[in-house]
Amino acid sequence: MRLAIDAMGGDHAPKEIVLGAIKAADLFSDIQITLVGDEKKIKEHFSGHDRISILHTEEVILGTDEPVRAVRRKKNASMVLAARQVADGQADACISAGNTGALMAAGLFVVGRIEGIDRPALAPTLPTIGNEGFLLLDVGANVDAKPEHLFQYGLMGSVYWEKVGGTANPRVGLLNIGTEEKKGTDLTKQAYALLKESNLNFVGNVEARDLLNGVADVVVTDGFTGNMVLKTVEGTAMSVFKMLKGALTASLKSKLAAAVLKPDLKVLKDQMDYSEYGGAALFGLKAPVVKAHGSSNAQAIFSAIRQTREMVSNNVTGLIKQAAEDSAAARTES
Amino acid sequence: MRLAIDAMGGDHAPKEIVLGAIKAADLFSDIQITLVGDEKKIKEHFSGHDRISILHTEEVILGTDEPVRAVRRKKNASMVLAARQVADGQADACISAGNTGALMAAGLFVVGRIEGIDRPALAPTLPTIGNEGFLLLDVGANVDAKPEHLFQYGLMGSVYWEKVGGTANPRVGLLNIGTEEKKGTDLTKQAYALLKESNLNFVGNVEARDLLNGVADVVVTDGFTGNMVLKTVEGTAMSVFKMLKGALTASLKSKLAAAVLKPDLKVLKDQMDYSEYGGAALFGLKAPVVKAHGSSNAQAIFSAIRQTREMVSNNVTGLIKQAAEDSAAARTES
Repeated sequence: MRLAIDAMGGDHAPKEIVLGAIKAADLFSDIQITLVGDEKKIKEHFSGHDRISILHTEEVILGTDEPVRAVRRKKNASMVLAARQVADGQADACISAGNTGALMAAGLFVVGRIEGIDRPALAPTLPTIGNEGFLLLDVGANVDAKPEHLFQYGLMGSVYWEKVGGTANPRVGLLNIGTEEKKGTDLTKQAYALLKESNLNFVGNVEARDLLNGVADVVVTDGFTGNMVLKTVEGTAMSVFKMLKGALTASLKSKLAAAVLKPDLKVLKDQMDYSEYGGAALFGLKAPVVKAHGSSNAQAIFSAIRQTREMVSNNVTGLIKQAAEDSAAARTES
Repeated sequence: MRLAIDAMGGDHAPKEIVLGAIKAADLFSDIQITLVGDEKKIKEHFSGHDRISILHTEEVILGTDEPVRAVRRKKNASMVLAARQVADGQADACISAGNTGALMAAGLFVVGRIEGIDRPALAPTLPTIGNEGFLLLDVGANVDAKPEHLFQYGLMGSVYWEKVGGTANPRVGLLNIGTEEKKGTDLTKQAYALLKESNLNFVGNVEARDLLNGVADVVVTDGFTGNMVLKTVEGTAMSVFKMLKGALTASLKSKLAAAVLKPDLKVLKDQMDYSEYGGAALFGLKAPVVKAHGSSNAQAIFSAIRQTREMVSNNVTGLIKQAAEDSAAARTES
């Protein structure tokens, strides 16, 4: 299996990207990695590896670049070339920790969409109290959505969670402002009907308040709402930790007690830590395209590679394509 | 000033409602409270007070009742009678910790809308790290909204935050998935333009991730998104505290250290505690209608009464009406 990795994307590139790639290549003997980026800079952190090669380019897409324009104009940017590797059959999947919007554009324009899936969806895994996590999609590949799109998100998320998460028949929930069937907007009401009729293991509406309790394995919503919820979870967790830090250093006595608790608090922080959960996969493209968190360290890059490897070896893309075809056929028949 | 309070609404009614009312009546000599509900049950917690009277009724709206139908059919329900007190000029404002949807319906149908405000908005105050809090609206009085509504939310929130929050020229932010002007949906783009043209102190788009950092005093959004964000903040904070509790009781050593930290952690939990922030005000009605949290204890009810008193004595309703008229006049002129 060959993976193309944008070595120049993210806050800690290329160092942490390179270190994460080395760790993955050491552990997984079935992968071959192409690091795309500035060879000289990459080699500062890299003394050679059997299964890692470098594709040199000096062009880079910045976090501040306007996504679509950047992908169109910077044809030799490390991210675009990584996507190009996939489109040209040189790689089975690609990963970047760079500009999210640009990666979505590169996925759509360079890698291309699966026929039968109208819109790609960006799908991160979020932590839950029980540690099993859940998949949230879409979190912003498309700001608005039609009922049919939400159904397709459920279909794609189900395939992924079953194959990569290892849960048979994943519970699919529709994010809504109440659990009753008639709650919400026209979009959620119509999506509810589609999901209910489908073969998915639809558990109905789920409320934002219950997400981290693990109320569903796959939670579907439009990209605007999903993005809000994702960022609210991040922002709230960060704020509570900040307040906690303030409380724990308020006095000498509390500082001493906090020192004793440090290992336990570290466990808690790790539990909320994105770096253990891999990246956000873009579903609905002809091959896996995975967005690692912008502030990824080597461990987070490693997790994203592990996750991408699972997607490729379990043929998630092929199964999504098949599921989309089956569902279209079922609709034509009925 | 006369306040009508639904004594039967909320998880801890009537006890906590009555105790909160007594505390407020003791402290504020300018208020006169009418407790609406089952006289016998109320009197179990109440031995009489100069400035508290009881309006007896046995009918109650339940949390499980369908809101609009309940308000229409249960004409003698404690919540409906409290709203009726306002409509009939017997009270200057009303408060309930009961069924949120029913209170919104009672506000709209019994108390009535201010002319010039198209949609009422439900507006809770959320905590921030710096403790100053911020107002979020709408959190679900209307699941969808037009650009004009978001502008009116900004206008109402501004008046409230200036008069009750005591911040001159409050910063109004538009909740969006990015800070750039062109981000988001058609709704946010058009609302951005309206807010930018207005006399409000509009600080542009704000992201969900930054809300608890106090990035704006008043944050406007459609009711569906606002409800999601509110519940995500609640759910995430609750989950982190649950995880924290797990971490702090993992071993005897950590239990001992946690005991030392207990007062500091209490401060932290209080900082996130809704009961200090009063209730969620319904703006756009002819008089203040305030929704106290369903799980309100006496302190939370007291806070809601204090907040309602501030709204009445600062003439928030009158000023909102004036601001709506001014803005309509400005639009006709231009």
